[in-house]
Amino acid sequence: MQALAFDQRLEYRRDYPDLARRRGESIVRVSLAGICGTDLEISRGYMTFRGIPGHEFVGRVVEASNPELRGKRVVGEINAGCGRCDACIGGLSRHCPNRTVLGILGRDGTFAEFSTLPDENLLPVPDSIPDDAAVFTEPLAAAFEIFEQIHIGRNQSILVLGDGRLGAMVALALNSRSYEPLVVGHHAEKLERLSALGLNTTETAPDGKFDFVIDCTGKGDGFRDALAMVAPRGTIILKSTAAAGAELNLAPVVVNEITVLGSRCGRFAPALEALAAKRIDPRPLIDGIFPLSDGLDAISAAENPSNFKILLKPA
Amino acid sequence: MQALAFDQRLEYRRDYPDLARRRGESIVRVSLAGICGTDLEISRGYMTFRGIPGHEFVGRVVEASNPELRGKRVVGEINAGCGRCDACIGGLSRHCPNRTVLGILGRDGTFAEFSTLPDENLLPVPDSIPDDAAVFTEPLAAAFEIFEQIHIGRNQSILVLGDGRLGAMVALALNSRSYEPLVVGHHAEKLERLSALGLNTTETAPDGKFDFVIDCTGKGDGFRDALAMVAPRGTIILKSTAAAGAELNLAPVVVNEITVLGSRCGRFAPALEALAAKRIDPRPLIDGIFPLSDGLDAISAAENPSNFKILLKPA
Repeated sequence: MQALAFDQRLEYRRDYPDLARRRGESIVRVSLAGICGTDLEISRGYMTFRGIPGHEFVGRVVEASNPELRGKRVVGEINAGCGRCDACIGGLSRHCPNRTVLGILGRDGTFAEFSTLPDENLLPVPDSIPDDAAVFTEPLAAAFEIFEQIHIGRNQSILVLGDGRLGAMVALALNSRSYEPLVVGHHAEKLERLSALGLNTTETAPDGKFDFVIDCTGKGDGFRDALAMVAPRGTIILKSTAAAGAELNLAPVVVNEITVLGSRCGRFAPALEALAAKRIDPRPLIDGIFPLSDGLDAISAAENPSNFKILLKPA
Repeated sequence: MQALAFDQRLEYRRDYPDLARRRGESIVRVSLAGICGTDLEISRGYMTFRGIPGHEFVGRVVEASNPELRGKRVVGEINAGCGRCDACIGGLSRHCPNRTVLGILGRDGTFAEFSTLPDENLLPVPDSIPDDAAVFTEPLAAAFEIFEQIHIGRNQSILVLGDGRLGAMVALALNSRSYEPLVVGHHAEKLERLSALGLNTTETAPDGKFDFVIDCTGKGDGFRDALAMVAPRGTIILKSTAAAGAELNLAPVVVNEITVLGSRCGRFAPALEALAAKRIDPRPLIDGIFPLSDGLDAISAAENPSNFKILLKPA
């Protein structure tokens, strides 16, 4: 099959071996796949993954263990747990120590004609959600994860650091729950586009301190900036793993009694509900749709900081 | 008056200028003062403070603005807020941006014959608490602060990292609320003494992961150790500002959705209640009581990792 695959470097391949369906799993024909920051890290060789990257997708089931899934239009939760450990039994297979993760860890991803996931990871997409909105389910679910982890009071102030893909998802998720976050970023054009979606934006870091600062910068210095803008006893939410290896002084976390909350993947249901109810329409964030054969150009476009979302259209 | 004072280095002085009582403040004759890790950092010149260190004390009021305080045996909350900002008005003068902090920031401390604090910072000590227990009120209050910040479920596992002063206070506070933390440390003798106080202890880091890991190591690598021992979606509580400047990779915080909670000073009331009710008796942790004139020896004794608590007795 056709695929983008990483091994030393990212390549477009026409001859990637066909996938074998394992027991309990489905094969999905990928209709659209989204490119996110993690994929860019993989394509730069920053992670140890080898194989097909990609974990955001919408597609149609062509083979399944569960006959009810066949032919269904689906999105899929990206963590596949072992089903036997405490985390899995407790409903948190996203934290299974033996998990595979679609396009990230031990499992080929969605920058391909076909992809596989356990049947139980697949969720049918309501007809009211078109493909180019459904493909945002995974990153939106990651944004909604915040609400599963922490309560945000109605009078608390929220700053979203970063005007990229991740910041946009988080701000839209908050907005759909009637919070009014302020998005701070460096790209005037993108901020304007976010304003057009009903979000509060600014290019200049505000003076005051915020009860919640959500680091969506995807950069090592994001955490430091967040520390400077969070109020005493406030909360910093880290949505990106890119905050790696910087020299960090955690003393202000203790002195100001800050809560730092790591937040990763989320359940898909809240995202699908918001998309079906049109409380979020992420389609204005799409800046390009590329065929797989132009996959390397698509990656370049996704690297361009003036773009929000680049999609791949395998079929 | 006699005092230990820091300026370039820590010195015992007989001629430290007498304190002037400011409006709304009391002068306290210090009966006992405790030495904590922050005092050691100050005496090594690691912090910018100049003057008399020390913030743990019990004493007797000799002059006060409020006549009811005169002659009373007291302990004192160490953060003196401006009384006018949002934090102060909201009851969180511990986080006032303009605060002074006894023996730490802009205010001479308790390694002296006399010390000053605002009247409202002083709490009378119940007669049932002897001086050598009351002097532990401040570090115990810092331990009880955890309960004001976060809920710990009855079935959740708790690891206290570090068998020093701080670890002992935190474990005793948890124990007094019927939690059963496990204290892990490197000093067999100290662990034995903590066992004798009814605590679970171990010298070898346990295999499993813990719902709560409380970093009381006072060392930069404490946070890294805590990350290795906390369960997915678990909580690391940082009780020490010493975790400074190490090169930290926060990616595991995101991937495992860890909560990191900074925790500093606490209200004194819960600590005084636990001491008065004899739910905590910290006196077996005292390893030496020195006169002010032997203050430098006292500091050396406090630096010795086989000791828990060293006290100064100014009078």
